[in-house]
Amino acid sequence: MSKGLAIIMFSGTADKFIPLGVLTQTAANLGVPVRIFVTGFATPYFTKNKPSPRFPKEFEDMVPGLLKGLEKMKAPSWYDMIKEAKEVGDVKVYVCSLIAEAMGLKKEDLDPIVDDIVGATFFMKETAEYEVIFV
Amino acid sequence: MSKGLAIIMFSGTADKFIPLGVLTQTAANLGVPVRIFVTGFATPYFTKNKPSPRFPKEFEDMVPGLLKGLEKMKAPSWYDMIKEAKEVGDVKVYVCSLIAEAMGLKKEDLDPIVDDIVGATFFMKETAEYEVIFV
Amino acid sequence: MSKGLAIIMFSGTADKFIPLGVLTQTAANLGVPVRIFVTGFATPYFTKNKPSPRFPKEFEDMVPGLLKGLEKMKAPSWYDMIKEAKEVGDVKVYVCSLIAEAMGLKKEDLDPIVDDIVGATFFMKETAEYEVIFV
Repeated sequence: MSKGLAIIMFSGTADKFIPLGVLTQTAANLGVPVRIFVTGFATPYFTKNKPSPRFPKEFEDMVPGLLKGLEKMKAPSWYDMIKEAKEVGDVKVYVCSLIAEAMGLKKEDLDPIVDDIVGATFFMKETAEYEVIFV
Repeated sequence: MSKGLAIIMFSGTADKFIPLGVLTQTAANLGVPVRIFVTGFATPYFTKNKPSPRFPKEFEDMVPGLLKGLEKMKAPSWYDMIKEAKEVGDVKVYVCSLIAEAMGLKKEDLDPIVDDIVGATFFMKETAEYEVIFV
Repeated sequence: MSKGLAIIMFSGTADKFIPLGVLTQTAANLGVPVRIFVTGFATPYFTKNKPSPRFPKEFEDMVPGLLKGLEKMKAPSWYDMIKEAKEVGDVKVYVCSLIAEAMGLKKEDLDPIVDDIVGATFFMKETAEYEVIFV
């Protein structure tokens, strides 16, 4: 991971945004560059018009306790973690061009946290020496 | 990823087959070897008798729009992307021997896109220097 | 993967524990160090008070056949695979400190298979040269 961390952010369930935020922030604090490639059902959460969070059906009974615990700890939201990581380190958020086209999304529809719309080839080339995880 | 891309294809929901196809094709076009290790609930989709696609319950409302968008773009199916990637580059599709035995699948039950049934040890050795992602 | 395998064990559905066990055991047998970072809805399964296994809603119809197949093969449980891997090789199981605090879990609540509660920074530093997968 010394060269960088590439996160393919695919899953859109709300729980997966916690590790997205934590891993991005941790890497940024360690001086590790991060590139996030947003695609699949995670994409609508990176637009200006975000859907409400959806937790995995299998664990819905555990959600209220988890949210209460995070609130009590004053844990920052995933969005704030990424925003802060972008201020601290070398972090970029890309939206996949294929999913953007399929979902009819243009640059102006996206949240300002997104740096650009890029293709998989661009992403794979830029992160060729990075550790890649698929969330 | 310069040495190769290893994809452990585990999740069986239909959305995950899109990044499987896109990542495989992109890597193959860049001259990067790809090894796919099919296991879990993704396995039945690599047999001759494929179940119908199943999208994640949490995002079922977004599926019709996504499919319409992909159709309008004339995006190829994941299957055709892998087939093409196999013609262009060094791409192999393996089915996990443990899951094949657990599901009672023999070589002749598998789709011709599958190259072989192998164990996790074989896969881990062959892709020791590859970037590994778990889908 | 030559330096080590880091597994971020996030998903809590029962199917994902099979690759956790298999990958850990395979790596350990090959002499590859393994570090497991347990977080998200996988965490309750690493406590003394484990919830019952939950399979993905989309594939519930395939579960009885899969379980029967695994039983017929006398496949060991994920728990026994990790336990054995810890005896054979250099394998450590960590629980994420953030999720432990959010879920109100202390060291004494955790299963003895867990070595320690650590933060994401510790984990990322320790596995900096490892191959990382997110399950």
